[in-house]
Amino acid sequence: MGNIAAAIITIGDELLIGQVIDTNSAWIAQQLNKMGIDVLRRVAVGDSKAEIITALDEELAKASLVIVTGGLGPTADDITKPLLNEYFGGKMMVNEQVLAHLKEMMIRRNRPVLERNMKQAEVPDVCTVLFNKMGSAPGMWFEKDDKVIISLPGVPFEMVSIMEDEALPRLKERFTSDALLHRSIITAGEGESYIAEKIKDLEEALPQHIRLAYLPGAGMVRLRLTGRCKDITMLDSELSTAQAAIAARIEHIVVALEDIPLEHVLANWFREQHKTLGLAESCTGGNVAHHLTQIKGASEYFKGGIVSYSNEIKEQVLGVATATIDQYGAISEETVTEMAKGAIKVLDTDYSFAVTGILDADGALYGVPSGTVWMAVADKQHVVTKKFYFPFDRLRNKDMATSMGMLMIWKFINNRS
Amino acid sequence: MGNIAAAIITIGDELLIGQVIDTNSAWIAQQLNKMGIDVLRRVAVGDSKAEIITALDEELAKASLVIVTGGLGPTADDITKPLLNEYFGGKMMVNEQVLAHLKEMMIRRNRPVLERNMKQAEVPDVCTVLFNKMGSAPGMWFEKDDKVIISLPGVPFEMVSIMEDEALPRLKERFTSDALLHRSIITAGEGESYIAEKIKDLEEALPQHIRLAYLPGAGMVRLRLTGRCKDITMLDSELSTAQAAIAARIEHIVVALEDIPLEHVLANWFREQHKTLGLAESCTGGNVAHHLTQIKGASEYFKGGIVSYSNEIKEQVLGVATATIDQYGAISEETVTEMAKGAIKVLDTDYSFAVTGILDADGALYGVPSGTVWMAVADKQHVVTKKFYFPFDRLRNKDMATSMGMLMIWKFINNRS
Repeated sequence: MGNIAAAIITIGDELLIGQVIDTNSAWIAQQLNKMGIDVLRRVAVGDSKAEIITALDEELAKASLVIVTGGLGPTADDITKPLLNEYFGGKMMVNEQVLAHLKEMMIRRNRPVLERNMKQAEVPDVCTVLFNKMGSAPGMWFEKDDKVIISLPGVPFEMVSIMEDEALPRLKERFTSDALLHRSIITAGEGESYIAEKIKDLEEALPQHIRLAYLPGAGMVRLRLTGRCKDITMLDSELSTAQAAIAARIEHIVVALEDIPLEHVLANWFREQHKTLGLAESCTGGNVAHHLTQIKGASEYFKGGIVSYSNEIKEQVLGVATATIDQYGAISEETVTEMAKGAIKVLDTDYSFAVTGILDADGALYGVPSGTVWMAVADKQHVVTKKFYFPFDRLRNKDMATSMGMLMIWKFINNRS
Repeated sequence: MGNIAAAIITIGDELLIGQVIDTNSAWIAQQLNKMGIDVLRRVAVGDSKAEIITALDEELAKASLVIVTGGLGPTADDITKPLLNEYFGGKMMVNEQVLAHLKEMMIRRNRPVLERNMKQAEVPDVCTVLFNKMGSAPGMWFEKDDKVIISLPGVPFEMVSIMEDEALPRLKERFTSDALLHRSIITAGEGESYIAEKIKDLEEALPQHIRLAYLPGAGMVRLRLTGRCKDITMLDSELSTAQAAIAARIEHIVVALEDIPLEHVLANWFREQHKTLGLAESCTGGNVAHHLTQIKGASEYFKGGIVSYSNEIKEQVLGVATATIDQYGAISEETVTEMAKGAIKVLDTDYSFAVTGILDADGALYGVPSGTVWMAVADKQHVVTKKFYFPFDRLRNKDMATSMGMLMIWKFINNRS
C-alpha cells in the first residue's frame, strides 16, 4: 500500500552462536513502525565481509531503508566501517567533532588516548556522521540510488541514543507514508482456539486493510489488530469499533485494552484504588518484585517484599510457625497461607502475594513432585490459595510462576476465579 | 572449511513490529553450534506468503539446513503449514498420532474438540512429522535437493521440546562436520580498547582458524576465542594455550575463564567458601535477588533478601534509623550502610549487599540528581560503599545497577578495588 519498506541487518558472530539475544532489532522496528515505516525483514549475519556484502546487496534490492547495527568497535573483529567505506566508494577522513569528543571522553575517564581510539574518529567521506554522545563509535548515514543506509553501533544504549537524537529526526524529514495503527486486547484464562472460535464472525468481517494476530503467552493471549490506511481518522475509528466488538464478545477474559504487561495493569488498579501490596517470594526469588518495579511509579503502591529463600527467613522475618513447616513442609498450602498473612503484617499492606515451590531438582526432598508451586493472595480478611504444577526447567518455570502469580493477583482484585 | 551451513527463518509480524523479542533463534543457534553446524544467517519475516517464499528461496540457496519457526498455530494468521505443503508439492493428510494427541490434550484440559484444533492434525504427506508433546502444532521435517528444512512452532517451550526430542537427534545422524570450539574470558573494570592494546601481540599471533571477539557489557568485557578444525584434540589444546596466555596478561581484571554470568561466578565462590549472602534492595526492586536465584543451587548460599522499596520497610524490617533517613535522605551513604548492616543482622548471613537510589523521574525530590545510586557490601567487620551515577532510562539503569551491584560483591570477596 505504498508504505516505505525497511530492512534491519544486525552484524556479529555472537548473534549466530546464540551468545547474545538481539534486542536492538525489536526496538528499531518499534520506532520505524511508529513513523509508518514497515520493517519487511530482519537479517543477522556474522563478522564476515562476504556475508555482510551479500546482506547489503539483497536487502537494498528489497527495501528503501536499510539499518545496519554492529561491528563498529575499536577491535579487530569490527569490520563494518571500512567495509561500508569500500561499498559506497568513499575515503576515510578524520572527523574533527568525533575526534574532539573522543579525546574529551578519554580525559574524563582518566584513560590514555590510544591510537586505536583515534581510529574511531575516521569516517568515510561519503557519509553524514550521526554523532554518538554516549560512546566512541559514530553512526553513519549513506545514500545510494535514492535509498538510505544507516550504520549504528551494536551497544544498545549507544544505538538508541543515536537513533533518537540523529537518525529518527532525519528519517521523519525524508520519508512520509500511510498511517499504520495497532490496537490490542489482552486476555487471560482461555486458549487462542477458544477465542478464535468465539469471535470467528467478527474476524471474518474485518476490512481487508485490518489484520488480526493471536500472540499466546503464559496463561494469556494477546490479540493485536493492525490497520493501514491513508485516512488515519477513518482507520482509527474502524480499529476502535473492531476492538470494542471483540472485547465485548469475550468480556469475561479481557484483562486490558492496550498492549501493556500485567505488571502495568496491576499498577494501574492499585494506584487508582490507593491500595498497597507486599510480597513474600520463595521460589520466584524476587522476580515478581522485579517485574512490579519495572513500572514507573510502582513505589506509590508497592511497598516491598521479603525474598524468603530459606526456611529461617520464612520463620524469622515473615513469622511462619516452625511447626507449620515441620508438619506440612515448606511447599504447602499451610505455609504459603502463613507467608501471605505474614507479609501483610510485616510489610503493613492492604494486599499481599506469597509463593513457595520447587522449580527443578528433586522435589521429593520436599515431599512434593518437582515443579510444584503453591501461591496465595490475601487481603486483610481473606486468603485465596492455588497449587500449580510447572513441567519445564528451572528458568522457564520461574518465569511461568511469576506470570501466573501476577495473574492470580489480578484475578483476586477483580473477583475472577 | 567444509562445515555445514544453516539458516534460521523466524516468521511473525510481531517480530517486525518489535512486539516480541526473538529468543528462539539464539537458542537454536547454540544447539546447532554444539554440533559443529554454523548458522550463517538469521532472517525474520512477517506473516506474508510472498515474504516467506522469498526467504525460503534465498536461504535454501545459501545453506544446507534451514530451520523455520512460527506460523503453525490454529488461527487465521498462521500460514506456514499450507505454504510449506505447496512449496514442497505435498498434499494435506491427517496424522493419526497427532490427532490422538490433540484429542487427549483437549479432554485433559476439559475443552471441547473444535474443528480448528483437528486441523492441526493435518500435515503435508511429503514431510516427516516431528512430534510435539508440549502442544498442538506438530513440527515438520522436509528434504529437497539434499537439503533439510525443519518447521517448528514459535512458542518457545514447544520449539525447544521438539528440537531436543525429535530434530537434534535426526540432525546428528544426518550431518557430520568440523569441530567448532569456544573459550571465553570474562573481565571486569577495563574497556575493550585497553584490553586489545594489552594483548595485541597475542591476538596477532593467533592461528588463522582461531578468532577473537570482544563483547562489551555493563562494566565488563567478555572475550571469546572461536576455533574450527578437523582435529578436535589439537584445536582444544591450541585454544587452551591461547586462553591461558591472554588470561595471564590481563590477570588483574579476569573474573572467570568460562562464559558464565556473574551470578554464577558468585554462586561458585560462596558455595565453595560455605558463606551466606543476604540482600537489601531498594531501587533494583528484587532484580539482584532474581539474578542470583537464576542459578541452580543458589539456595545453598543465598538466604534471601528484603525488597525495601518504601522507607517504612527500610526502617521497620531492616532497622535503618528514622533519624538517618531524615538527616541524610533515603539515598545516601549513611542509609545504604545501615541497610547493609541491617541485612546481615535480620537475615543472619555472613555477607550482605544493599542498594538504594533513584533510577528516573525527579531525583531532586530526594535531594540527589536522577540516576544517583548508593551501594554497599558488608561482612561482619567491614562495609564498603560506592556511589554510582547512571545516565539512562529507568529500565536500563535498573539493569546496570544490578550488574554493577553483583560486580561490587565480586570485587569485595576478591579484595579488588
